Amino acid sequence: MTMRLLLISNSTNAGEAYLDYPKHNIHDFLGEKCVKCLFIPYAGVTVTWDDYEKKVKNRFNEVGHDIVSIHHFDDPVKAVEEADCIVIGGGNTWKLLHDMHANKLIEPIRKKVLGGTPYIGWSAGSNVTCPTLMTTNDMPIIDPLGFDALNLIPFQINPHYLDKKVEGHGGESREDRILEFIEVNREVYVAGLREGCMFVVEGDKMRIIGQRNLRLFKYGEETREIAPTEDFTFLLKKPMI
Amino acid sequence: MTMRLLLISNSTNAGEAYLDYPKHNIHDFLGEKCVKCLFIPYAGVTVTWDDYEKKVKNRFNEVGHDIVSIHHFDDPVKAVEEADCIVIGGGNTWKLLHDMHANKLIEPIRKKVLGGTPYIGWSAGSNVTCPTLMTTNDMPIIDPLGFDALNLIPFQINPHYLDKKVEGHGGESREDRILEFIEVNREVYVAGLREGCMFVVEGDKMRIIGQRNLRLFKYGEETREIAPTEDFTFLLKKPMI
Repeated sequence: MTMRLLLISNSTNAGEAYLDYPKHNIHDFLGEKCVKCLFIPYAGVTVTWDDYEKKVKNRFNEVGHDIVSIHHFDDPVKAVEEADCIVIGGGNTWKLLHDMHANKLIEPIRKKVLGGTPYIGWSAGSNVTCPTLMTTNDMPIIDPLGFDALNLIPFQINPHYLDKKVEGHGGESREDRILEFIEVNREVYVAGLREGCMFVVEGDKMRIIGQRNLRLFKYGEETREIAPTEDFTFLLKKPMI
Repeated sequence: MTMRLLLISNSTNAGEAYLDYPKHNIHDFLGEKCVKCLFIPYAGVTVTWDDYEKKVKNRFNEVGHDIVSIHHFDDPVKAVEEADCIVIGGGNTWKLLHDMHANKLIEPIRKKVLGGTPYIGWSAGSNVTCPTLMTTNDMPIIDPLGFDALNLIPFQINPHYLDKKVEGHGGESREDRILEFIEVNREVYVAGLREGCMFVVEGDKMRIIGQRNLRLFKYGEETREIAPTEDFTFLLKKPMI
């Protein structure tokens, strides 16, 4: 079976309704027949899991699909093993990865998705498909019990990639931060995925949906812009370490 | 001996020269007689330690003081034990804490500073005086070998505290991120220290230098603004856990 991933930069564009802009892409990815997805709400910190589930369920229902949250299952590993699609929402990546580790879900999800069960993630949920969580923008509010993530793709996504800084602010830009990452992690590509954009991975093929370029970083290479129309499947090649 | 800390939010205000705005405060803190400080450059990632030392040395020299970087010493622990003042510069907090742990410097610095050796930090160098690094804004480019930091003060500083977001960006604001932190870490105060501001701690007394309010967060309490003229020594009281 072919691995299938829909990796969305951000749930919500500024000023729009929650998870509104990518709903038709979610529909296209899942197809016409209603899929009841397993939803993992662990990244939600200042929202209850019930409320989080409700928000996501409403949007999936709008496009003819459905979700049920993993917190309703007594055995989360079994819930993963029996899922028809796995959906991981955004929030705090540290909290998400902590709960995935604490519930021993990393290997089961990895195995399941490599076996062909479709996967949809946004923001933190896209970040955790990378080798590690190390290109997150989130505050480390909890020890994640290890930085290793699902390692479904061999490069790092920086979701919500942002070009600008707040005017008059002296702190680092997003680019500054990623340049620090590649200085210390020299083998790994970092894809700055701007808001409104998403990756679709199907086996050894990958494309971008969205109108904005990818910004690509690697140690020893010039940082560059890649248009959605260009070929960037080379990102799926495992780096030699 | 009384513990003495100068904890600066940011080295440099936007558009100004490196470490320029706080140089007179550094002078006031160290006094008239030249102090040769031990400088810890570990947070520097995209700058060599020699270059980082040079930049900081130039500014300290301007106000009649001096530094030497710890990377010139064969025995960093001994260098700390013999220091007249410890200065930790900004950069990446994860890299800084990693190198502090790897060189086994946490306990020696803590002991030395509790014993009365003055301490100056900015940005990451202020963050590591807190119980943990968990209110950093930096990208986790390396496993820090433990989130625990110097624990010289019992509350968390968020340096470079920022009110605004980039317009049109859907990602979290700084306030959103800190609200996530206090949801999970309910006993701890977080002080959002705006750029251009610094704490001066002398024993059980603390004041702010700077023109801007502190923004104070704690679980179960209304988030509030504290003017530099107000009394906030309660922050130095250890929380009951």
